[in-house]
Amino acid sequence: MLVMWCSRTAFGRLQRIAPCTVTGFHRAMSTLPKVYVTRKVPPDGLDILRKSGQVQFEMWDSDDPVPRVELLKKVKGCEGILCVLTEKIDAQLLNAAGPNLKVVSTMSVGFDHLSLDELKKRGIRVGYTPDVLTDCVAELTVALLLATSRRLIEATHEAKTGGWGTWRTLWLCGHELANSTVGILGLGRIGVAIAERLKPFKVKKFIYTDVAPRPDLANMIEAEYVSLDELAKQSDFLAICCALTPETHGICNWNLFSKMKKNAIFINTSR
Amino acid sequence: MLVMWCSRTAFGRLQRIAPCTVTGFHRAMSTLPKVYVTRKVPPDGLDILRKSGQVQFEMWDSDDPVPRVELLKKVKGCEGILCVLTEKIDAQLLNAAGPNLKVVSTMSVGFDHLSLDELKKRGIRVGYTPDVLTDCVAELTVALLLATSRRLIEATHEAKTGGWGTWRTLWLCGHELANSTVGILGLGRIGVAIAERLKPFKVKKFIYTDVAPRPDLANMIEAEYVSLDELAKQSDFLAICCALTPETHGICNWNLFSKMKKNAIFINTSR
Repeated sequence: MLVMWCSRTAFGRLQRIAPCTVTGFHRAMSTLPKVYVTRKVPPDGLDILRKSGQVQFEMWDSDDPVPRVELLKKVKGCEGILCVLTEKIDAQLLNAAGPNLKVVSTMSVGFDHLSLDELKKRGIRVGYTPDVLTDCVAELTVALLLATSRRLIEATHEAKTGGWGTWRTLWLCGHELANSTVGILGLGRIGVAIAERLKPFKVKKFIYTDVAPRPDLANMIEAEYVSLDELAKQSDFLAICCALTPETHGICNWNLFSKMKKNAIFINTSR
Repeated sequence: MLVMWCSRTAFGRLQRIAPCTVTGFHRAMSTLPKVYVTRKVPPDGLDILRKSGQVQFEMWDSDDPVPRVELLKKVKGCEGILCVLTEKIDAQLLNAAGPNLKVVSTMSVGFDHLSLDELKKRGIRVGYTPDVLTDCVAELTVALLLATSRRLIEATHEAKTGGWGTWRTLWLCGHELANSTVGILGLGRIGVAIAERLKPFKVKKFIYTDVAPRPDLANMIEAEYVSLDELAKQSDFLAICCALTPETHGICNWNLFSKMKKNAIFINTSR
């Protein structure tokens, strides 16, 4: 059986792509199981496929997605597909691949692009990369929050365009995290990781909202459960960490923004 | 005696400007002690002067420094001067102010712009604002570090100029802090505050160099003392936190940079 695992960081460096192995038999090169890789994946990951000597693979060697027509052609006869979130793995594609296909691995935390029913029906195993992005998304959220609060983008612009003159008492000062209230909309692993990173900045209070209180996670960061209304009203910094679903669609609208403090900072790193 | 204290954050909001008081007697407005404020200071601070009712003050109402000629004229007869780091408070200025001058307060952590000998000779008291910037400089250092490592400036540029297309596996990924070595050149309160903020990002190791080991501070952040050479070689992120003095002048030169890792990130928030 063919088992593939890969993990990565969406915004960080590749962390691990564990071995792709075919167990039980060895064959000559031309009869090795075929794997199609739908995107230029990080070299460390590709090396594992290459060095295993147990698969032959072809890769769409580009930073841009493989066109659907090309994809449908290339997967024909493959035993494995290593894809990313831009490839829709549905009945049409599985039919095009044919009965040899044993595993689909996606280099992504989400798997909305996989038709799980169709995969299950055919007994095809699925690999994905849960959790690998938690730290990276939290880090990126803090990076965006600080860059916004400390006005780094405007400051860079001023430096580049000659606006950076003498030191001025409050020019581009921004707002500090100390004594602030940080709100989290959608408390999950990422929200917790964000709060853990912000805590040493002397944040006064963490608040959050979700479909229901999450005491297990909230206790880790001493966060208080509040209504969406209160979240908007009290937050100096508001981090959006929920997934986009029919339930959350449009939740951050004019009504929410109009309740926020005038100087509040809104950071959206949701999926 | 006139006593003034002010404190501020260079890059953050004003934290405290404690009262300006004249003790022992009250006088009619025209005879109230005169204070010259050399720059537009944050409104909260100015309010304290205004509401005390115990001084009359005049302010250079601008974000740019007061011209020297104007300054020399304005300080004449003053009992107090509230300045910032652009005003050289030397014999010439003190002579221009005359014998009424009792206190000079500078809204700055540094006091290189004050001729302490001249002030002492005349029995003039000095106010300054030690420590108030520690948290802010640490916060700004982390902001700059993350904006650099996560390539936010380039990403903003791409978003503004139409370069932001489809998701790509490693495009603008940058480098994560997890498992990295962070070096600090010049370990003081600010270096400690930086390390405290970076620790939850899962930094592997903190190292530092200084004129001598600082076990008192280093133990707070479990930082290892290394030579300048090793600091350059080992650091994935290098934060410069020393003051610019004759001893540190030119210390970050080609020789240092050439020893650094190819992907190392160098952040300078020293004075």
